[in-house]
Amino acid sequence: MTKPFDLQNGTPLESAVPAMPGDPASVSPSEARRLFAAGLSVPTTGWSAGHAQANIIALPQALAFDMMLFAQRNPKPCPILDVLDAGEVRGGVLGGDDPTAHADIRTDIPRYRVYERGELVAEVSDAREHWRDDLVTFIVGCSFTFEHPLLEAGVPVRHLTAGRNVPMYVTSTRCWPAGRLSGPLVVSMRAIPPALVADAVRVTSRYPAVHGAPVHVGDPAALGIADLARTDFGDPPVIEEGDVPVFWACGVTPQAVVMESRPEIAITHAPGHMLITDARDSAYAVP
Amino acid sequence: MTKPFDLQNGTPLESAVPAMPGDPASVSPSEARRLFAAGLSVPTTGWSAGHAQANIIALPQALAFDMMLFAQRNPKPCPILDVLDAGEVRGGVLGGDDPTAHADIRTDIPRYRVYERGELVAEVSDAREHWRDDLVTFIVGCSFTFEHPLLEAGVPVRHLTAGRNVPMYVTSTRCWPAGRLSGPLVVSMRAIPPALVADAVRVTSRYPAVHGAPVHVGDPAALGIADLARTDFGDPPVIEEGDVPVFWACGVTPQAVVMESRPEIAITHAPGHMLITDARDSAYAVP
Repeated sequence: MTKPFDLQNGTPLESAVPAMPGDPASVSPSEARRLFAAGLSVPTTGWSAGHAQANIIALPQALAFDMMLFAQRNPKPCPILDVLDAGEVRGGVLGGDDPTAHADIRTDIPRYRVYERGELVAEVSDAREHWRDDLVTFIVGCSFTFEHPLLEAGVPVRHLTAGRNVPMYVTSTRCWPAGRLSGPLVVSMRAIPPALVADAVRVTSRYPAVHGAPVHVGDPAALGIADLARTDFGDPPVIEEGDVPVFWACGVTPQAVVMESRPEIAITHAPGHMLITDARDSAYAVP
Repeated sequence: MTKPFDLQNGTPLESAVPAMPGDPASVSPSEARRLFAAGLSVPTTGWSAGHAQANIIALPQALAFDMMLFAQRNPKPCPILDVLDAGEVRGGVLGGDDPTAHADIRTDIPRYRVYERGELVAEVSDAREHWRDDLVTFIVGCSFTFEHPLLEAGVPVRHLTAGRNVPMYVTSTRCWPAGRLSGPLVVSMRAIPPALVADAVRVTSRYPAVHGAPVHVGDPAALGIADLARTDFGDPPVIEEGDVPVFWACGVTPQAVVMESRPEIAITHAPGHMLITDARDSAYAVP
């Protein structure tokens, strides 16, 4: 990182990129977003404890109904928490109740991916130069929300313990298409001891807004996954003797849909670099 | 009812309108829809036990994104179970898995309401003469689904016992608008004994797809309801000594939105005359 200088008087200015806070878990969502908007670009695991993190996908308004319909037809991979209509850059779970909160969907994610006609063309920490006024932003639930309740229920979350990203796989299962949008189901996998599979189902069932209950328990081959060690996104799995692979629908599914459906433009978060919302994880628990 | 005659040979044809079945609870959804399509026009309370009944609203495609967004922003009054895109007359919870099932959204509801620019212009048992190929149909969850579980949990459902329709009220609470759609929250009310209010909350919380937990417990005035005896839709309430009025978001809300937002055309079910879907009530229970 290079420090910019004030050319007028030659003294160094404050660093352009903020430092990593000492305890990211205790940083408020508004402050976290302010740091990311100021240029800090790091994965968000463990940040702003208790607040829901989310996937985002922004698409041209002409595709917005198709995306809403796709989400309605595929609620497990695409649980929509909120939508910012064309021209809106904040609202709802993103600073909605508090005008003093820092909130701007174009800058507040630590890293974005920009797709043009299905091809990844840029990965940036500030999306303003790619943003368009006709983009509608879908804020989609993320399984981070149910991982803490899993731990509290005594269910190990092995990738967390190992300090890794969750392993994700593109499956042979197709989502139900909607208009011009179609694509495969993407899943995340957590290896669970047999005696705790029922608990893992029970706990995550309580979070339908963040992918909910597993879509598949056991045999990866039935999902078209030949080798669990070869992930499509995230890190290789940690599996202990006797563990059962349990698969949840994953919020990366919309990115797979974008790659297949090739919209003119789509802007998403980069994997692991999520939007930190003002909503509390607990708000998504039912009953 | 007049019986049509075969003018060719003078013998009476079968009645044009089917007779009411002896036990509507045991009629399959497909058969119920066939009877309604053939002209039977009766309220659907008690029909096809165990199968989810639903509100419907069909709007021009130009408003479909706004309606999806409205539903996303107001999930308690507008829990969407399924959407039939423009040109589709069946699919998903309406005959989706079974090509032999009778299913046609334009004819299968016992009574429809047709609105033009917010004014009710017709009430018909067959909507085909008003239907347009650009109509998108939203199938919206209905609180009928959680009334049986309430009874099973020992919570009285007084309007059912009295053979009445549930009382409904237009409140002073505004829904969160979306695009060109805005309107008041409409609620249904069930009078619950104080010792059973917690059970009523617990049981209905398990059904987020059919309005879920109450939006309000107690004082009707806080919702702008001056007199519980004066309902806006449905029948007057049955309230016993000591009962607490408990209010749930109601699927009539989209009709109130139509009346206020005045779209060119909207077609809905008539109150109490619901769409009988192929989905099982139990499919909407979480966890």
